[in-house]
Amino acid sequence: MNGINHQIAEALSRIRQTKPLVHHITNLVVMNDTANVTLHVGALPVMSRAPEEVGEMVRMAGALVLNPGTLTTFEIESMFIAGRAANELGIPIVLDPVGAGATRFRLQMNERLLDELRIFILRGNAGEIGALSGVGGEVKGVESIKGVDDPAAVARAMAHQREMVIAIGGKRDILSDGKRILGVDNGHPWLTTITGTGCMATTMIAAFAAVERDYLIAAAGGLACFGLAAEMASLKANGPASFRLALLDQIYHLTPEQLSQGARVVELHSEI
Amino acid sequence: MNGINHQIAEALSRIRQTKPLVHHITNLVVMNDTANVTLHVGALPVMSRAPEEVGEMVRMAGALVLNPGTLTTFEIESMFIAGRAANELGIPIVLDPVGAGATRFRLQMNERLLDELRIFILRGNAGEIGALSGVGGEVKGVESIKGVDDPAAVARAMAHQREMVIAIGGKRDILSDGKRILGVDNGHPWLTTITGTGCMATTMIAAFAAVERDYLIAAAGGLACFGLAAEMASLKANGPASFRLALLDQIYHLTPEQLSQGARVVELHSEI
Amino acid sequence: MNGINHQIAEALSRIRQTKPLVHHITNLVVMNDTANVTLHVGALPVMSRAPEEVGEMVRMAGALVLNPGTLTTFEIESMFIAGRAANELGIPIVLDPVGAGATRFRLQMNERLLDELRIFILRGNAGEIGALSGVGGEVKGVESIKGVDDPAAVARAMAHQREMVIAIGGKRDILSDGKRILGVDNGHPWLTTITGTGCMATTMIAAFAAVERDYLIAAAGGLACFGLAAEMASLKANGPASFRLALLDQIYHLTPEQLSQGARVVELHSEI
Repeated sequence: MNGINHQIAEALSRIRQTKPLVHHITNLVVMNDTANVTLHVGALPVMSRAPEEVGEMVRMAGALVLNPGTLTTFEIESMFIAGRAANELGIPIVLDPVGAGATRFRLQMNERLLDELRIFILRGNAGEIGALSGVGGEVKGVESIKGVDDPAAVARAMAHQREMVIAIGGKRDILSDGKRILGVDNGHPWLTTITGTGCMATTMIAAFAAVERDYLIAAAGGLACFGLAAEMASLKANGPASFRLALLDQIYHLTPEQLSQGARVVELHSEI
Repeated sequence: MNGINHQIAEALSRIRQTKPLVHHITNLVVMNDTANVTLHVGALPVMSRAPEEVGEMVRMAGALVLNPGTLTTFEIESMFIAGRAANELGIPIVLDPVGAGATRFRLQMNERLLDELRIFILRGNAGEIGALSGVGGEVKGVESIKGVDDPAAVARAMAHQREMVIAIGGKRDILSDGKRILGVDNGHPWLTTITGTGCMATTMIAAFAAVERDYLIAAAGGLACFGLAAEMASLKANGPASFRLALLDQIYHLTPEQLSQGARVVELHSEI
Repeated sequence: MNGINHQIAEALSRIRQTKPLVHHITNLVVMNDTANVTLHVGALPVMSRAPEEVGEMVRMAGALVLNPGTLTTFEIESMFIAGRAANELGIPIVLDPVGAGATRFRLQMNERLLDELRIFILRGNAGEIGALSGVGGEVKGVESIKGVDDPAAVARAMAHQREMVIAIGGKRDILSDGKRILGVDNGHPWLTTITGTGCMATTMIAAFAAVERDYLIAAAGGLACFGLAAEMASLKANGPASFRLALLDQIYHLTPEQLSQGARVVELHSEI
């Protein structure tokens, strides 16, 4: 594991050295939070959403986040324009299928994004990934209320079939690229008390994906970094809002050394 | 009054036990704050706004918030689709007519919502309710600059005529269902220094309406709970932003026991 | 300089006495922050964006902010409707050309706003103003990565040509109305660690422009007030999020006396 911890600490250093642009086409609830998370981890955010410009804007980016949490047909068009441009250039796309499964529209739109674009990393909660994988999973609004029985098996099977990295959020995050399976144990229960922490985790993954081409490691790095910052922030929290403030402060201060020591990434299975 | 305090404390307990979904179609300024308030009081938020899905999403909800603070024709369509679905199912709708009266468009759109949907609870400031009731009331942007002379009489008359609960925000909030009239004295002047506190109060009312079928009591419960949290938060405030943080923390921590003891709901008139 | 400091302190007093409405048609990322900044400095915000009402809403306003940071064609239409109404009535318009130069669409839309409306004050970073002035300047997302060699000369030339006040953000903000050139040295490096501080500075300028008809002084006042609040807030910051909280609190508490003493406005050149 020291190998992985070293890799993700190195990636964090590279984010801060190169300040990659992370282009978000994202939901209206978390836009401010995810822009700040992008800055605090060391990257640059842009939230451009007009179909007239997203294809040009994404060319400057190191990664593209697609987050259809408040999706309308307007954003879908922009997501496809930006997504196709990113795919042409090999810019990694991270999809957060917020609320997939809660309505047919959400399920279909996320399936279309998965089918028609090359998505590099898909990160969702167990209900969302369950719904998209076809093995079940239920979502109430944007909250997972029924996950999947064996998340490691589901993640690996879907990652293998879709040829992408799958990350399922939970007390232990489960990640797979279809061969390797990792668990990330960093995190804190306060994260469930504020809105948008899944979206923030996705933003962290995108910042890592902008500088790390092993996308399983990038996903683990983003989740470990975010979860570790949450653990450290929890010491200063008097409630959800003071936790959020401390979390944002902590993301800014977290050093590669702290990440290397504090990341709790476990290798659950490796297939060669 | 002990009866009412007991009822609203019980309602707060039910919110936390049942975690109802509160579907918001709301303005762009307060979306993050109201999502967090929903979570902190113990419910689940969803901010879905696409006409393709709102009718399906609202079926899972315990209450629907309509808040046209940054209304466009796009949201109007979604509000009517979600509103009609909610009405079919008896899901309570809470309308916050932000800025009604500031422009003809706002006044007409809010009137259409009131006329064409069954609204269960209408909560606004004195200028907004004054404008909608036809007795006067003036709004500058979204701020009440001229209220109504006798808010209790206006609230009761409009509630009687419209067959809904009317809640007029103020130093003393005035509520009526057309028969009973209540005052809620909880609150704090810091609430006037930050944006979106009226919208947050409406969200609190909706969470209570999801679990309490006496909608006058639900409205009083939401306002007392919000105002009491503001009072407790004021002790930790060094300014508006630190007040907001403390308010959000406090909503999360407020117990039914504290609400039962601290709610200041007064019965102003009762007609049988 | 005591003259200018006195003028801007007087303007701050007038904001708090008259509470002008500042109408924003602005980007989705900063809407909540700029609404709060407007309230904290003593004015009233409204974020109305529907083409059906912006022309009527702006008539109540003391100033109009146009901020195309997440521009779509929808907002462009509203910006022109509100802008033309403001121009008819002599209501000052402040334009923040967020990300101008990052894409052709952004550059063209900002040029159209500059060409077809009478803009009173244009405030941007060095990359944005460089791109709009035609002398170069590069933007990555919304971040200036290449400014202009001689900002004072660029600001004065563009201000002279366009007949408006130009303000270029930086460690020293540079402002000109085509004749006079001012520098504002207030500010703090923490401002670069959170999103939307440029937008907040623009909002502050608009609040000052609502009460001060010498728009060069209004722009200097807004920037000095914002920068001084940032300096004071930096003493309480443990990171970017706690800095933001302290900044918002401080804007609320800043007195005209503190502004008169703490504003660092320097006259760089005066042409009569």
